[in-house]
Amino acid sequence: MKKLRCGIIGLGRVGKMHIENMLKIPELDIIAVSDFFVDSIGGWLDMLNIGVRYKDYRELLARTDIEAVFIFTSTDTHEQIITAAAEMGKHIFCEKPLSMSTEEEGALAVLRTVKQAGVKLQLAFNRRFDPQFRELYDMVRAGKIGQPQIVKISSRDPDLLPHDLIKKIGGLIFDFTMHDFDMARFMMGYNINEVFVKGATLIDPTLQNIGDVDTLAIILTFENGGYALIDNSRRAVYGYDQRVEVFGSDGMAYADNINNSSIKYFNSESCQTSNPLPTFHSRYREAYLAEINCFIRSVMDNVPIACTGEDAFIAQRVAIAAQRSLQSGCPVKVNSDVLLP
Amino acid sequence: MKKLRCGIIGLGRVGKMHIENMLKIPELDIIAVSDFFVDSIGGWLDMLNIGVRYKDYRELLARTDIEAVFIFTSTDTHEQIITAAAEMGKHIFCEKPLSMSTEEEGALAVLRTVKQAGVKLQLAFNRRFDPQFRELYDMVRAGKIGQPQIVKISSRDPDLLPHDLIKKIGGLIFDFTMHDFDMARFMMGYNINEVFVKGATLIDPTLQNIGDVDTLAIILTFENGGYALIDNSRRAVYGYDQRVEVFGSDGMAYADNINNSSIKYFNSESCQTSNPLPTFHSRYREAYLAEINCFIRSVMDNVPIACTGEDAFIAQRVAIAAQRSLQSGCPVKVNSDVLLP
Amino acid sequence: MKKLRCGIIGLGRVGKMHIENMLKIPELDIIAVSDFFVDSIGGWLDMLNIGVRYKDYRELLARTDIEAVFIFTSTDTHEQIITAAAEMGKHIFCEKPLSMSTEEEGALAVLRTVKQAGVKLQLAFNRRFDPQFRELYDMVRAGKIGQPQIVKISSRDPDLLPHDLIKKIGGLIFDFTMHDFDMARFMMGYNINEVFVKGATLIDPTLQNIGDVDTLAIILTFENGGYALIDNSRRAVYGYDQRVEVFGSDGMAYADNINNSSIKYFNSESCQTSNPLPTFHSRYREAYLAEINCFIRSVMDNVPIACTGEDAFIAQRVAIAAQRSLQSGCPVKVNSDVLLP
Amino acid sequence: MKKLRCGIIGLGRVGKMHIENMLKIPELDIIAVSDFFVDSIGGWLDMLNIGVRYKDYRELLARTDIEAVFIFTSTDTHEQIITAAAEMGKHIFCEKPLSMSTEEEGALAVLRTVKQAGVKLQLAFNRRFDPQFRELYDMVRAGKIGQPQIVKISSRDPDLLPHDLIKKIGGLIFDFTMHDFDMARFMMGYNINEVFVKGATLIDPTLQNIGDVDTLAIILTFENGGYALIDNSRRAVYGYDQRVEVFGSDGMAYADNINNSSIKYFNSESCQTSNPLPTFHSRYREAYLAEINCFIRSVMDNVPIACTGEDAFIAQRVAIAAQRSLQSGCPVKVNSDVLLP
Repeated sequence: MKKLRCGIIGLGRVGKMHIENMLKIPELDIIAVSDFFVDSIGGWLDMLNIGVRYKDYRELLARTDIEAVFIFTSTDTHEQIITAAAEMGKHIFCEKPLSMSTEEEGALAVLRTVKQAGVKLQLAFNRRFDPQFRELYDMVRAGKIGQPQIVKISSRDPDLLPHDLIKKIGGLIFDFTMHDFDMARFMMGYNINEVFVKGATLIDPTLQNIGDVDTLAIILTFENGGYALIDNSRRAVYGYDQRVEVFGSDGMAYADNINNSSIKYFNSESCQTSNPLPTFHSRYREAYLAEINCFIRSVMDNVPIACTGEDAFIAQRVAIAAQRSLQSGCPVKVNSDVLLP
Repeated sequence: MKKLRCGIIGLGRVGKMHIENMLKIPELDIIAVSDFFVDSIGGWLDMLNIGVRYKDYRELLARTDIEAVFIFTSTDTHEQIITAAAEMGKHIFCEKPLSMSTEEEGALAVLRTVKQAGVKLQLAFNRRFDPQFRELYDMVRAGKIGQPQIVKISSRDPDLLPHDLIKKIGGLIFDFTMHDFDMARFMMGYNINEVFVKGATLIDPTLQNIGDVDTLAIILTFENGGYALIDNSRRAVYGYDQRVEVFGSDGMAYADNINNSSIKYFNSESCQTSNPLPTFHSRYREAYLAEINCFIRSVMDNVPIACTGEDAFIAQRVAIAAQRSLQSGCPVKVNSDVLLP
Repeated sequence: MKKLRCGIIGLGRVGKMHIENMLKIPELDIIAVSDFFVDSIGGWLDMLNIGVRYKDYRELLARTDIEAVFIFTSTDTHEQIITAAAEMGKHIFCEKPLSMSTEEEGALAVLRTVKQAGVKLQLAFNRRFDPQFRELYDMVRAGKIGQPQIVKISSRDPDLLPHDLIKKIGGLIFDFTMHDFDMARFMMGYNINEVFVKGATLIDPTLQNIGDVDTLAIILTFENGGYALIDNSRRAVYGYDQRVEVFGSDGMAYADNINNSSIKYFNSESCQTSNPLPTFHSRYREAYLAEINCFIRSVMDNVPIACTGEDAFIAQRVAIAAQRSLQSGCPVKVNSDVLLP
Repeated sequence: MKKLRCGIIGLGRVGKMHIENMLKIPELDIIAVSDFFVDSIGGWLDMLNIGVRYKDYRELLARTDIEAVFIFTSTDTHEQIITAAAEMGKHIFCEKPLSMSTEEEGALAVLRTVKQAGVKLQLAFNRRFDPQFRELYDMVRAGKIGQPQIVKISSRDPDLLPHDLIKKIGGLIFDFTMHDFDMARFMMGYNINEVFVKGATLIDPTLQNIGDVDTLAIILTFENGGYALIDNSRRAVYGYDQRVEVFGSDGMAYADNINNSSIKYFNSESCQTSNPLPTFHSRYREAYLAEINCFIRSVMDNVPIACTGEDAFIAQRVAIAAQRSLQSGCPVKVNSDVLLP
């Protein structure tokens, strides 16, 4: 079996989840890993039989036997590491988002470098690879609901994140809602013209100290005249709430939450069913595997990337506008010019 | 508007429910009522503006201005009153069952009298008129599930009945399962060849003193080779459980319970929805109205009776076999000969 | 039985629906009716046994034997008729909305007149009386979801209205979304500070000729910091889509649509269930009856009005701000000053 | 990591499914495999890196470096191979059923041999390990429904099996309903006293040529007085229908089917959702993994076997009685004597 020789950069919370999926994929040959704190996880790497380890990702990138790299470091390093990897000619799979900068220039420079290097770049907007949302997407694209007019997304986290982590991965809009911007555009099939955002700290007022919010209500306006309504919360006590609905001229379809079980229990008080799956790990288990398999197919069989750097850049552009809308209290136009010369 | 001039016989628990429905039907002209305890409900009848009252139903039947009678007395009187009404040339709507006798002869004699009198007789197997089950029936008859092979009925009462009442209306098989025999045959569209019954007193062992049970498991075998599985309980703590499923060569359809509300409530423990409607009053509210309207149409417009005396007799015949199977522990054949000469 | 002696003004599309409910309520004594086209419905009124009829509602109001009036005329007459009725000392039940004016002054004057007259005024925001939404409301008020943070309403009509009718009852915001403004405030339990509206004609571009839209996406901001997200469409091909969700600090609850049936049908292709109830008649059947019973209790037993003139005025105020937001493309503040001196 | 050194016997349809799961379990060290047709699957075994292969399972059993064997051969060989493995001191995981003999003696002899050898024996009644049914079981054992009174199982295969295969694995009762006998007893928590079976060939009349049926309706009576109602069909056109319900004195709980997706699609005709998962591979994917992990824990950590030889023998005993009931048309008692001296 032909294998894809790869390296992994970043073995924190998210990297660990990914690597366990990657070890189940026979077509992947993990040549080396790199993490700034690689010394502290030696025992775990021993157990996984991963011998080649670097503290500095540049050493990993320097290896000529590596064709592709998976970047799972914190968001604030993405621009730098993608650029370095592209310059070394590696195909790149990188966790979302492309950037947490509120300026577009950095990300655009990254995309230019990737283009010049001629390497493939996939961003890990995992929800595009979820079987539920993929089926919903396929139905919409097949015209089963006619012309899409309204997209509704409720996306609610199970609980607050530590402030320190927020500083490294971005606030609610850049870390979390970014997914919904991508999903809304993915489902509608058109670009976004305008964004209006209302946000508040209804759960943790101290988030204001770091300029973040915990609750958001958002309207996106699309090029085709349609709208998306998005609501976010950092704390849904009943689980990880992930629902998407698409309404159109000939029908409506929605992907409901996936529950812990299909059991119904009736007693003298009520009927009880189970809550939605509790975390992104459990909810998107299949999606995390699918997005990596999709990248492998793309590199090895040259099939198109399912979530490109351009897709990620557009989501970031909407996030930047959203941040400005949140601060100004007014709707903000989104530039839909051609991205790259 | 032409009206149907009618009398009502029996104003107990069930009669009161029916009369309140009947007062809402403009086509009904209630000429008189009769009940053995009519003196004790004078105030209530005053409030309903029902002036002509008899203690003896024979006096009511003697009125020549009455075209049709509704019989809501206890089961042990049905044979006698139907016969008397038919002899007086009245069209007859009678609560189910036709009879609680374990001999067929009495009921057959009733049917013969009705036939000779040339009057219409409808038995109140109300579930046939429930919009849910009617829709299910229509789907089955339209061939949407292909050839029906298996009927599954779960029919569970919310709670035990007083022993005194049971003596008057019959035990679990004659009062309750009788409905399921009729429903199973209605859905399958074929007659029943054999019945096997297991029963026990898992809730109230003192029911054995009056020869009754509170829990039943039943298999019916039909002429077309198909089966029905029926389970009954006298106490479902979560409400009045009424589910029917029909499985066939090209599909399956079922009517689930109707719930108190469509609310879903999620907290940190579980998702809670409402229980099934709690009683036959609430569950079959529309059916009770529909069956009377159907009878009116039948008398006034000569449309066929939707639940005939023959239908009721066949259900009774199955009940008689079921009672014998319960006692013997063996399957019992059901006679499917032509009913009447 | 003590009865409420009442008159009915307006017997068009909506009035006819109401009067059929009212005839089922024994506590109502319908003394007279009035309609500009009363001559054309004589046969129907004969059938209902309603003999006293006026072309001019002032004659009806002049009757001293009438204690209360029900106003079902088109919206553009509400201000005038409520004022006249209050001046004649009648208690008033009036279809929503209070007014379709984009100025507040007319409605405020009406409220002042009603207050001075000391009569009761109930507006027919029927959804408040729907058993589903009432149960949801009770759960929220009982604290079952903690502090309410997000209200989500999808409210979609089955089909477009004639342009002529729209001119008489108001466009999408004043006729339809008005309900959602009231529902959102009802559920959140706080007043609205700001409204942001995006609207388009995605279904019928000729609506632009009469200044109307067919699709809306709305964010309301509440005094408690929470948000409502509302989406409206004039044409949901699958039925009358009416869903309300309330999310809070300790949980979430929603009222899903009521379907035509509970049947599930499985064939080799898919599982099919029934669509939502198709029209406001069927969906809110119980609510239409409940709101009138509630008004009767209020007049006869002096219990508080469940939907007051002030409630209706606040909904109108939000609608006025919404109309301005739709036109300007910007969020618009809503005045939450004390309403009346 | 300590590993369990094992061999696999039988690499047909079911063996192939199992081995792919087993390769994902790091604690398993697959030393060797055996299959009568091992020569024909050399390429596939090469791909899996399984080098040691035998045509005769006795050679595999003779290896002293193998602690445990997994037997996936056809049912007609189970008695013989379990006996041989036990005599060689191997722990044994064997596909269900223990035996397809209609005599108890063979299976009892097997159990005696296993007991004398002091090895562990687990039978692969995979449904016990399904997360849904396990949660249902845990609820019942925790008393959430009170005393269990009625178990309802609908278990329907997606399609007919080839007659040749049926001859090797047993007819509907021994191959398929056997699961339901085990499940019913597992849920009720009591042994079975009596079984009544009705069966027919409603789908494929030529099954009569090999003494089999395609449709079954069954009542089991339990020691505690409760009942199970089971219905089976060989062809449910809508998927692999697997539902279990347990009703008791304080409530009811059921495990509904798992569907292909959670998407709801509404158009002008109906609401469509997805069908149940189509095959045992997809429906019980997690169960197949869980049962093997459970066996590993049992052997390595000495935790009790979750589905013992005795459990399998009792299911077989019920199957034997069921076969006799099917043929005689009468209920048949099930011996519940102590199994082994």
